Amino acid sequence: MNMSIAAVPDIVIGRLPIYLRALTQLAETGQEITSSHELGERLGISSAQIRKDLSHFGTFGKQGTGYRINELKERLRRILHVDRHWEVALVGAGDLGHALARYGGFRACGFDITLIFDSDPAKIGVRIGERTIEDVAVMKDRIREAGIKLAMVAVPAVDAQATANLLIEAGVVGILNYAATTISVPEHVRLQYIDPVLHLQRMTFYVEPVSQTD
Amino acid sequence: MNMSIAAVPDIVIGRLPIYLRALTQLAETGQEITSSHELGERLGISSAQIRKDLSHFGTFGKQGTGYRINELKERLRRILHVDRHWEVALVGAGDLGHALARYGGFRACGFDITLIFDSDPAKIGVRIGERTIEDVAVMKDRIREAGIKLAMVAVPAVDAQATANLLIEAGVVGILNYAATTISVPEHVRLQYIDPVLHLQRMTFYVEPVSQTD
Repeated sequence: MNMSIAAVPDIVIGRLPIYLRALTQLAETGQEITSSHELGERLGISSAQIRKDLSHFGTFGKQGTGYRINELKERLRRILHVDRHWEVALVGAGDLGHALARYGGFRACGFDITLIFDSDPAKIGVRIGERTIEDVAVMKDRIREAGIKLAMVAVPAVDAQATANLLIEAGVVGILNYAATTISVPEHVRLQYIDPVLHLQRMTFYVEPVSQTD
Repeated sequence: MNMSIAAVPDIVIGRLPIYLRALTQLAETGQEITSSHELGERLGISSAQIRKDLSHFGTFGKQGTGYRINELKERLRRILHVDRHWEVALVGAGDLGHALARYGGFRACGFDITLIFDSDPAKIGVRIGERTIEDVAVMKDRIREAGIKLAMVAVPAVDAQATANLLIEAGVVGILNYAATTISVPEHVRLQYIDPVLHLQRMTFYVEPVSQTD
């Protein structure tokens, strides 16, 4: 990681994929130019915030002429390192694991779930799409051999920390955790949580409880 | 919404469920007292940030004696309005919809998916657990009758905006969007996105592409 990267707040990095998605959608409609104002309207983010976020990475667009959508899109893809193909390991082949393994949105964005693991003997050897579920007992070696750096954890909460530990020993440095529990990782590992309960609880704060029936 | 709520930044609100989850896990171990330092270590958030976040809602704990876990937990539950039962509607009964409908973590936290909708005639009438998939054609009336305020959208991206519009007409004010697309909602509606691609793209920023094989 170089020094300029360390200087960009992670919350800014977190917004870049959102900008990239909006730009991709605009490009699909054939539109060629956009503005921080138009992006802001689409995303519910102020145009000043968008300009400030992008300014961390150099100059984008010209005053008064807006952004060339394809150019900005490609620059964001390079900044985020998503101008390439990433292999991803998936641990846990329950309902959620199956949904993730079959989700078409990953490959469209350059992510490919190439290895799937579970500890349930009834699942090991079963195919999901083009992949075959493998035993977690071989996970560490398989991931290391493949040089995979990213993994999704979709195991029961009680198994999440042990799974993360194994993944990190195998060389994984980015973990997307679907298990509904907090896990600890060393500083060099990026950890993101996907827990719908946290999102729901963030919304109910704004909803007046009196308005519901029970 | 009262005035004090409007004054708390949404990013602070977004951290409260994370604190609540950590407190719940600590309580389960039988621990009675914690500190902003211990919480911060668990969560990778600075103890100063935790104290500042909580200070928006009054005084918690005493200098030098830490927080009583159960007391802080209950206060956070009240603040977030999760000290009660919330009914949730789910739209889209594909792989992901099934995984959500069967996920045990919602009910444990007071959320109950009571209505499930799909537009596919092959799915309508099919049961998932205790619920039966209903036709989206009756969605607006069913949600309005039930007084449901929260919904999860797990439909294809192309249908997401129309689904959100219908939900909002039915009285929904909190939408958890799993569809991989941006949707627009009026200001009184809270919208949260769950898109694993956005999370993966946020992590690849930190991973040196040279370290992978292809």
